[in-house]
Amino acid sequence: MWAMIGTWRMALEGIELASKILEQGGNVGDSIESAIKYIENFPYYKSVGYGGLPNENMQVELDAAYMDGSTFDFGACGAVRNIKNPISLAKALSKFDTNNFLVGPGAENYASKIGLEMVNMLTDRAKIHYKNRLYEENQTNEKKDLKPYIGHDTVGICALDSNLNIAAGTSTSGLFMKKQGRLGDSPVLGSGLYADSSIGAASATGLGEDLMKGCISYQIVMNMKNGMSPQEACQHAVMSLEEILRKKRDKCGDLSVVAIDKDGNFGVATNIEGFSFVYQSSNHPAKVYVTYQEDGKTRYKQASDKWLEDYMEKRMAPLIKLYE
Amino acid sequence: MWAMIGTWRMALEGIELASKILEQGGNVGDSIESAIKYIENFPYYKSVGYGGLPNENMQVELDAAYMDGSTFDFGACGAVRNIKNPISLAKALSKFDTNNFLVGPGAENYASKIGLEMVNMLTDRAKIHYKNRLYEENQTNEKKDLKPYIGHDTVGICALDSNLNIAAGTSTSGLFMKKQGRLGDSPVLGSGLYADSSIGAASATGLGEDLMKGCISYQIVMNMKNGMSPQEACQHAVMSLEEILRKKRDKCGDLSVVAIDKDGNFGVATNIEGFSFVYQSSNHPAKVYVTYQEDGKTRYKQASDKWLEDYMEKRMAPLIKLYE
Repeated sequence: MWAMIGTWRMALEGIELASKILEQGGNVGDSIESAIKYIENFPYYKSVGYGGLPNENMQVELDAAYMDGSTFDFGACGAVRNIKNPISLAKALSKFDTNNFLVGPGAENYASKIGLEMVNMLTDRAKIHYKNRLYEENQTNEKKDLKPYIGHDTVGICALDSNLNIAAGTSTSGLFMKKQGRLGDSPVLGSGLYADSSIGAASATGLGEDLMKGCISYQIVMNMKNGMSPQEACQHAVMSLEEILRKKRDKCGDLSVVAIDKDGNFGVATNIEGFSFVYQSSNHPAKVYVTYQEDGKTRYKQASDKWLEDYMEKRMAPLIKLYE
Repeated sequence: MWAMIGTWRMALEGIELASKILEQGGNVGDSIESAIKYIENFPYYKSVGYGGLPNENMQVELDAAYMDGSTFDFGACGAVRNIKNPISLAKALSKFDTNNFLVGPGAENYASKIGLEMVNMLTDRAKIHYKNRLYEENQTNEKKDLKPYIGHDTVGICALDSNLNIAAGTSTSGLFMKKQGRLGDSPVLGSGLYADSSIGAASATGLGEDLMKGCISYQIVMNMKNGMSPQEACQHAVMSLEEILRKKRDKCGDLSVVAIDKDGNFGVATNIEGFSFVYQSSNHPAKVYVTYQEDGKTRYKQASDKWLEDYMEKRMAPLIKLYE
């Protein structure tokens, strides 16, 4: 048995590619790196890797993390510029006992030193998004709120290989127009991801600042440890965190999570409409699902052909320059 | 009732100072900032703030975090240079809904913009430590392991004010000779600190890379939520994390934690010899305690006058330059 789950429709091609590694008995870490690299490299996903939207200074700053649930190796990088594949840096850093979480210029220097590919991650499309935003804000004389934008966010992948190893990985360009140096939950162990091969793994996407307040991925894995199914574990974690945030802060950002357990079963929960995810396993072809809420719980159904077409069309549509 | 607990003997003067704020009915956040600022400013503590030991490039890079257990406001900074009081930056960042965790140059730019005091944090004593280390490594032709050094590490403070607000804060220069850009657990929500006014708060010190693998401060607060006393919660969290790390990795770094609950009771646990901490409350004068292990559990006794004298003497002793 092997299995793989990833956040958002954008995980599809990466998972299809990486599942071949798992199918051939390959290692869970290689499969996660391979899936996320594909997504980082695809220029039309504007929240991960190349083509990711920039911070308020028009710099693309990226976060990524990797956790091996068998060895508890962990590596992460945050606020890094010009690194083509942040997930590869995170995975490389996970091999050590210390210095696993590097940020900013220190992380970039290290990536350079170990020979990772460096490239300017700011695309022409990302520049148009940035300039359009400035134009809109100038027009209305008002700064927009920073928030995740529907359908586009962190990629988080959890996988189980046929040797019963579980791992998780994340990659993101974070909030569009974030402050320089801002980290979200993605590189934070326990928040963006957590994996324990004897239990399962989880990964999160949404408003990092709120996801961190509940160590949500760690909590999901602990829920599974305490006997919940992946679905119950995800549902319970999202509902509990939303409840406490509303109680303490009167508001709650987007919280979406995916998980798998050590038998390859998956779970998903979200507090938004239209969260999508991808699941594939040794006995389940790669499918895109879209979530909806029913009786206060997250349900999901397979994405329709129309939904899938619309998704890619929107991503790749020519951009109108508002500012010209 | 008010109460305050801090990691290591070095927390003493800061806690004594800050307890005056609590005594007068002041706010828990102000007391934590005030205590930690004092410790950051004291040049002889070589693991926090001014006088902190540098990274492998002889740069002092600092991490700090603050969490308010009533509002769940959280702020943190990591790998920041030249900021006199990282705790003040962390606390300032906690006031927003996004961009709460800033690292590297982005964090420094922000600190500068809001008028925080900037100063070169590298002292002559720290330079001597750095050069001595290079000299020793040259002599033996061998790089030393990165590890926390006994008696000197992150300051983590948890406090309860008389209005039943609980908060926690951390500040550290991290591992001596760490890689540029390295973050430990201190700025990581759930690992270095966690606070929930309806339950309690916890903070950790030791090998950040290992502490993060168990989201240890979050776990301690969850243990208290599930009915454990602060002492049981700390003991259980340290033992569980050590056990899983030994099982998965055949090794485990230093793990030391302190906690208080909503009634001001405290707990402490460690897997090392001679961890010290400071506790003061409305009905308990400020005292320094030193831990020891008995029957596999952490116990503590008040530090003797000799222990206290030795401590400061060691910190302030003239340094011998090995390299001259």
